[in-house]
Amino acid sequence: MHIGFLGLGNMGSAIAANLLKGGHPLRVWNRSPGPAAALAGAGAQAAATPAEACEADVVFAMLADDQALREVLLDSGLLARLPPTVILVNMATISVAFAAELAQRAQARGIAYVAAPVLGRPDAAAAAKLNILAAGPDAAIDAVQPLFALIGQKTWRFGAQAQQANAVKLTVNFMLAAAVETLGEATVLAGAHGIAPQQLLDLLTGSIFPGPVYQGYGTLIAQQRYAPAGFKAALGLKDLRLALAAADAVAVPLPVGSAVRDSLLDAVAHNEGGMDLAVLGQVAARRAGR
Amino acid sequence: MHIGFLGLGNMGSAIAANLLKGGHPLRVWNRSPGPAAALAGAGAQAAATPAEACEADVVFAMLADDQALREVLLDSGLLARLPPTVILVNMATISVAFAAELAQRAQARGIAYVAAPVLGRPDAAAAAKLNILAAGPDAAIDAVQPLFALIGQKTWRFGAQAQQANAVKLTVNFMLAAAVETLGEATVLAGAHGIAPQQLLDLLTGSIFPGPVYQGYGTLIAQQRYAPAGFKAALGLKDLRLALAAADAVAVPLPVGSAVRDSLLDAVAHNEGGMDLAVLGQVAARRAGR
Amino acid sequence: MHIGFLGLGNMGSAIAANLLKGGHPLRVWNRSPGPAAALAGAGAQAAATPAEACEADVVFAMLADDQALREVLLDSGLLARLPPTVILVNMATISVAFAAELAQRAQARGIAYVAAPVLGRPDAAAAAKLNILAAGPDAAIDAVQPLFALIGQKTWRFGAQAQQANAVKLTVNFMLAAAVETLGEATVLAGAHGIAPQQLLDLLTGSIFPGPVYQGYGTLIAQQRYAPAGFKAALGLKDLRLALAAADAVAVPLPVGSAVRDSLLDAVAHNEGGMDLAVLGQVAARRAGR
Amino acid sequence: MHIGFLGLGNMGSAIAANLLKGGHPLRVWNRSPGPAAALAGAGAQAAATPAEACEADVVFAMLADDQALREVLLDSGLLARLPPTVILVNMATISVAFAAELAQRAQARGIAYVAAPVLGRPDAAAAAKLNILAAGPDAAIDAVQPLFALIGQKTWRFGAQAQQANAVKLTVNFMLAAAVETLGEATVLAGAHGIAPQQLLDLLTGSIFPGPVYQGYGTLIAQQRYAPAGFKAALGLKDLRLALAAADAVAVPLPVGSAVRDSLLDAVAHNEGGMDLAVLGQVAARRAGR
Repeated sequence: MHIGFLGLGNMGSAIAANLLKGGHPLRVWNRSPGPAAALAGAGAQAAATPAEACEADVVFAMLADDQALREVLLDSGLLARLPPTVILVNMATISVAFAAELAQRAQARGIAYVAAPVLGRPDAAAAAKLNILAAGPDAAIDAVQPLFALIGQKTWRFGAQAQQANAVKLTVNFMLAAAVETLGEATVLAGAHGIAPQQLLDLLTGSIFPGPVYQGYGTLIAQQRYAPAGFKAALGLKDLRLALAAADAVAVPLPVGSAVRDSLLDAVAHNEGGMDLAVLGQVAARRAGR
Repeated sequence: MHIGFLGLGNMGSAIAANLLKGGHPLRVWNRSPGPAAALAGAGAQAAATPAEACEADVVFAMLADDQALREVLLDSGLLARLPPTVILVNMATISVAFAAELAQRAQARGIAYVAAPVLGRPDAAAAAKLNILAAGPDAAIDAVQPLFALIGQKTWRFGAQAQQANAVKLTVNFMLAAAVETLGEATVLAGAHGIAPQQLLDLLTGSIFPGPVYQGYGTLIAQQRYAPAGFKAALGLKDLRLALAAADAVAVPLPVGSAVRDSLLDAVAHNEGGMDLAVLGQVAARRAGR
Repeated sequence: MHIGFLGLGNMGSAIAANLLKGGHPLRVWNRSPGPAAALAGAGAQAAATPAEACEADVVFAMLADDQALREVLLDSGLLARLPPTVILVNMATISVAFAAELAQRAQARGIAYVAAPVLGRPDAAAAAKLNILAAGPDAAIDAVQPLFALIGQKTWRFGAQAQQANAVKLTVNFMLAAAVETLGEATVLAGAHGIAPQQLLDLLTGSIFPGPVYQGYGTLIAQQRYAPAGFKAALGLKDLRLALAAADAVAVPLPVGSAVRDSLLDAVAHNEGGMDLAVLGQVAARRAGR
Repeated sequence: MHIGFLGLGNMGSAIAANLLKGGHPLRVWNRSPGPAAALAGAGAQAAATPAEACEADVVFAMLADDQALREVLLDSGLLARLPPTVILVNMATISVAFAAELAQRAQARGIAYVAAPVLGRPDAAAAAKLNILAAGPDAAIDAVQPLFALIGQKTWRFGAQAQQANAVKLTVNFMLAAAVETLGEATVLAGAHGIAPQQLLDLLTGSIFPGPVYQGYGTLIAQQRYAPAGFKAALGLKDLRLALAAADAVAVPLPVGSAVRDSLLDAVAHNEGGMDLAVLGQVAARRAGR
């Protein structure tokens, strides 16, 4: 299959490289030219425009947000010119509402739209260990599953409505931020009673809270190591905003979500938006004057 | 060593049974006589009064709450009559403030007071797989460690101030309730977008949220199986109250803790206090009219 | 001055009628024709299109929300065709971001854009007793002040950036919803201790909480009179969403705002969005199982 | 009537002085002797002990908190020695639970116990303009009403259970703190959009939020005048703690109450507990990095 790829940030570049390793002809495009040039060195074809990259059987998009995607696919008229044989696979974390709009517009043109946001950071992407959350027309997902197998460890399927995958992704990211906020609050509480953060963390991960979230973010909090960011607080806030919007659309109150959003705003207000999401530990400490 | 044991609820009985299996002479007391009789059948001596049970080298206490402990140990004058050679090991989840008071009163009499709350439910207690959070005088903990080895898989030590172990225990229980509340909110959010609870749960536990909390409570929420209770919502509320009090005492705001407390009050207000903590999933659904 | 008026809901119709009474030639337009016909009976000219209504010296707009305004003014190309001599006075409660966008687009065409959202309900509008919150170019506000004097009791000026008036309006509506939520929580708390709502309300309004908010919404809550709605909960939620968005844009956490938003979502989730904002009292009672 | 008075802080001294002006023989006691000496200069009799002050027909108590009252009345055995002819009028803001306990103990001895917490600050007390919230046996309130008339502008009666008056007082103080927190959040939100605090305040108090709370605390916030304190943030926190405990006892969630409590803890954590409650404005600003 000929593949097009739009958006070569850390995640996109790593995913595209694995598709290339799979032996598929690949056309790549990125707003700034550097990343496309790098992939060209590995055998990809650097496209001059998004439209050129989309001359393919399957088009992957991993752009920054709703706005970037809207500009590249809709405002440009690109989606309206794609042939109905194309399968469009959008891996970005976008809003549920915009995913639904995109799916509807694609469907109106007979194009199969698959939402496939992922769990995993750039290192997991490089190692082809992503968890892929997929939703959209079954046949289309079946068709691209061999490609998903090149980039992820597992594909989780969440229904025929593309936006369902985005709803799940936002739900998981809400849970992630809530766990980090809780870790932050807990660390300050225990710390105020004389417990070293690492002591608490060893107990947590050695008993009822194993797993990468508590281990990873707990370590960053314990070591107050908030930069460089693996996952920026500002992006965590963006995702939480989208999760709250998705909840608002179906009238679901999320009290913990609201509390976490307020803490993330506190971080951004203190110029910590570029720091790692773990900086929620610092927000909790600041609130307690510690 | 001669051991005394006060308080034979589900947890206390299981722990006492393991101490007995270790070959130590054991005197047990409980407010209602049934549990003591059961252990007597296994070789323990049923004491007629708390004081009689305390004629021992080490006294374990696993009473319900601050109030029960205050009545049995302080109001009765029992603590004031214990010989200074006794080591008092309190395993109950009590307030940090009362733990500090008890430690101070014990110390004033030359009695070694060890706080040793545990992580683990009755089945873990029966299997001698508890995680024991210990704080107090080092020598005293060293002395009772052979007994801890009979009942737990690991002893975590948190300092010389007994109440520090209680602070850690309350911190962990706050985190537990926060995780369950978050799971509840997440399940309703995803559900409102057409995702079955079990689908979400499989993803969570199969990716970034492994471990007994998400697996166990997630299953209960997915199956709406809130009774019989493994850990009652009303007890979760009790512990959260104590966590918030411990935070208040050191001026640490816990926004997520506050949100969880409000949800637990909602549960109790709807006669769900006797249900499992997982009923927070039902509270989240009710709030969303689902 | 020739006046154009777009949007004749309850508020718009009452305001337009007062402008008409002031002796100014008035062209009115509304999506559905009924309200324009009614004003035509009083001497206004019913315009067939928004563009026709805008053939005037001053154009007032009182449309429902961002979306309606965007369609009528921007998507239609109307703003781009208005002559630079027009003063555009937007009285609707819209988002700060969209107000800024409108002001900028107007300015780019040399059109004076005045934001003039109001405090007051339809009866205050009919009585020409509105409080008008105005921001925009000083000269333009000076020019329309004689018209404001026909419809309001006072004009409050908030700066040269039009969107500042919107920021103030959203701030006040946030405070209004917060006061009603607080009243609701307080009524349930006191009620659970045997205090009748009216007893509490008499004390509040007779001591430290006089004024229309506590008196008016307090009475509705005390009498559980949630319909017909004076100000719908769904509109309160819309405004709170805009307030939180305005806060988000400048990184200001609003914990009370978040709590109120969650309660309003609870109302909407229970099909109470069409009831009066006072229904927050019912939400508080439901949460407490009362 | 012979009157006894326990507790001569700012409030107690002002109230006692007005009782004295009413021509009643007055015995006063305070932990530190200064205030009693001052009143003695005006004709009161300084009692050497609480018991001596209680040799009276009516005993007023205005002690600091539950703890002070428990020591003076219960731990000392004083209540148990009072003759059943005494009417005990407790004006302090204490917990609902302790008020109920006191009422029950008094009743067991045949003593009439009246709860009479007040609304109003020391200047209102000096001017005999307090609002008195009274609950307890009707006959006893009737009997002391002539005394209440000497110290307050109005007596509000809330039932035969003394603790009901305390529930109302705590409810009102919760509403007060919620209004101040809301003012603080609103001021920061508007301020971040370029609105001066005084501008916002003028609008609020000149339109829908008249009254002493918004005017008084709004001015303090606008001027960032947090010391000296009229009503200390630490006392506001104490009262909110009691309000939340009263709510917990009847399973009433108070989300806004929880949010305000967290902000007050933030204040105390930053050594602002001794500042005026208005410092919640500073907390809101700090959270927003302003």
